Amino acid sequence: MQMNDYIELVNSKLNEFIQIQYPETIFKSMKYTVTLPGKRLRPILCLETCRLLGGEISDAIPTACAIEMLHAQTLIHDDLPCMDNDDYRRGKLTNHKVFGEAIAVLAGDALLTFAPQIITKYSENLSPSVLIRVLNEYFQYAGAYGVIAGQVVDIESENAEKIDNKEKTLEYLHIHKTSDLFKLAMRTGAIIAGADDEKISVITEFAHNFGLAFQIADDILDEISTFEEMGKTLGKDKEEGKLTYVSLYGLEESKCKLSCLFKNCCDIMNKHNIQSEILEDMIESIKKRVGI
Amino acid sequence: MQMNDYIELVNSKLNEFIQIQYPETIFKSMKYTVTLPGKRLRPILCLETCRLLGGEISDAIPTACAIEMLHAQTLIHDDLPCMDNDDYRRGKLTNHKVFGEAIAVLAGDALLTFAPQIITKYSENLSPSVLIRVLNEYFQYAGAYGVIAGQVVDIESENAEKIDNKEKTLEYLHIHKTSDLFKLAMRTGAIIAGADDEKISVITEFAHNFGLAFQIADDILDEISTFEEMGKTLGKDKEEGKLTYVSLYGLEESKCKLSCLFKNCCDIMNKHNIQSEILEDMIESIKKRVGI
Repeated sequence: MQMNDYIELVNSKLNEFIQIQYPETIFKSMKYTVTLPGKRLRPILCLETCRLLGGEISDAIPTACAIEMLHAQTLIHDDLPCMDNDDYRRGKLTNHKVFGEAIAVLAGDALLTFAPQIITKYSENLSPSVLIRVLNEYFQYAGAYGVIAGQVVDIESENAEKIDNKEKTLEYLHIHKTSDLFKLAMRTGAIIAGADDEKISVITEFAHNFGLAFQIADDILDEISTFEEMGKTLGKDKEEGKLTYVSLYGLEESKCKLSCLFKNCCDIMNKHNIQSEILEDMIESIKKRVGI
Repeated sequence: MQMNDYIELVNSKLNEFIQIQYPETIFKSMKYTVTLPGKRLRPILCLETCRLLGGEISDAIPTACAIEMLHAQTLIHDDLPCMDNDDYRRGKLTNHKVFGEAIAVLAGDALLTFAPQIITKYSENLSPSVLIRVLNEYFQYAGAYGVIAGQVVDIESENAEKIDNKEKTLEYLHIHKTSDLFKLAMRTGAIIAGADDEKISVITEFAHNFGLAFQIADDILDEISTFEEMGKTLGKDKEEGKLTYVSLYGLEESKCKLSCLFKNCCDIMNKHNIQSEILEDMIESIKKRVGI
């Protein structure tokens, strides 16, 4: 499968899984953000990991799509006026700008239940015990122990001046806010493929490095990119005095760290004989955008 | 078990399930609303149904507590400024008044993942396939097909004047906004007890009537009660022109309908030889408060 085939597959399934029905507003609002054009990195990582470890891509589709829905949920609520207060996302109006704040809150809420429901509803080929393992991964990384822990520390990192151990706080924030969803995607892909614990731990290590790299690249692009390139308002973290990799270490050291994390990713792939054009393409495309 | 034993059991388990850890803000915020004093009707309905149908109460505790957490989640987000904008709930400041809006949004989000996680984490005695059945019930009633569908129609019922079929809309709204969580509680209690489909359908019928009665009682109390009695601001639905049982049918007819629904509940209990002081107490206590 090429990258575009994966994107097309994920898009068509996302579209299929969210059927508009009464009361239409909520399903339209959920579908609006879930189907905004995107790179679909997380679902593709799930599907590609499943394939690499000998599983059937089709078995991982519900989980892959659930993770993209979860990701969309974080975007809807992150963009709310009481959070980042953003009007644009992926070049389009944010959910609350189109549907109003109340519906945007409920659409995010609905997706948090809809996503794991997609996993149980459409994973006919998974045994009940594998299904429960997948759900447990989902719950662990999606909630207060995972992504949300990262978001809370992110919010609390406004006025970064007041934080005691900035390095440690930033690492915690990046691991949970960003790496956790990449870990979830790749670990569930591996579990669905029937991988053993050793392979799952290799995959987790890759996802950890890849996720941190992705977040540092995002911090760099927030500094050097334009609205047109990113499709969202930039420079807000800086404005709010938020803790970012660039604010703490500067642009050059951030680029070095990014190179180093991607080198870790390639080393893991080489050492464990993981050959994936898709993973290589993802890394190269991020490197190119950041200019390293 | 008496009502107070149930309340004590549920409270102690809710307290135990939410351990405060880093980042503390989010767990404190979740715990704040979940542990506000309350009647714990939904979890008790789950536990009592399980007991009535021959199951072990202890097997249903994680699910019962998850449903109370889900209920607390709906309160946190309902009270937000962009929703009902309420400052008080159960006589205490609402979540966003204590923790700020951003954390209140995230605490609600976190509970939506935390609640089903509690079910998978602590239901050691349930087989994987029963566990998945319970989760499927949870997903169906908690999300866009259940409670949230009701909340959306509730929001859209502002300016009730514009609604075409008010009677049908109101019924839909009540069924989903309120009955669905009662159905979820009693159906999962029955499933955990190993009840057959026929018993589950009797239980569902009871929950349907009880839930509607509960919502009509709430509409009546919103009209005739005081802040001190209810612990929340009253009369807001009327102010916003929202569709309620009382606004559509008047106070007297609402009381008649309530009596009729409770009679249905008692008929179901008699017909199927369900003897429960707890269910009878719940009905009597609501009747007393409303004055019928």
